[in-house]
Amino acid sequence: MVQRLTSAEREQLLEPLLIGPQAWHLVSERDAIKTSFSFQDFNQAFGFMSQVALKAEAMNHHPEWFNVYNRVEVTLSTHDCQGLSTNDVELATFCNKVYARFQ
Amino acid sequence: MVQRLTSAEREQLLEPLLIGPQAWHLVSERDAIKTSFSFQDFNQAFGFMSQVALKAEAMNHHPEWFNVYNRVEVTLSTHDCQGLSTNDVELATFCNKVYARFQ
Repeated sequence: MVQRLTSAEREQLLEPLLIGPQAWHLVSERDAIKTSFSFQDFNQAFGFMSQVALKAEAMNHHPEWFNVYNRVEVTLSTHDCQGLSTNDVELATFCNKVYARFQ
Repeated sequence: MVQRLTSAEREQLLEPLLIGPQAWHLVSERDAIKTSFSFQDFNQAFGFMSQVALKAEAMNHHPEWFNVYNRVEVTLSTHDCQGLSTNDVELATFCNKVYARFQ
């Protein structure tokens, strides 16, 4: 059973994701993180989504996401623990890595 | 330049999409249609999205959509005419056709 991040894990694993040019932010009403990725066009945006989808399926850990044209808004949280887990850290880090390839 | 659907086109082309088990509905605050598709799992949901994405890219007419796990919410409207056009009818019909293959 996956566990919510501890205080120590939030400091060590989560906080680095909350800073920098492609920062994620904490969602106010629930224990989740969210960010928005912008691309040149839909082709790139859906290319990003396809790569993240394959990773998500392999992890059996899926994003909540919204896409319109060149923009992809991603929200991550873990259903089984009703909050953030190391799975969210891993998937957020992967999103950033894929996004960096498009820059 | 793409034009908004006329009254006659709304009756002939749009209204058939607003009835039946996989009905679309008009969005209240803007001239757009929306529906929600449910699948067995994320794999199916993203398979559906991939097929629709290829069609959208070929049409150069893209959806606004939200996905969480097995559910895909799709909103269609045409940016160039700030409302519904025959492109939305075509893409909605295509979504229904792809969705039917998963049933």
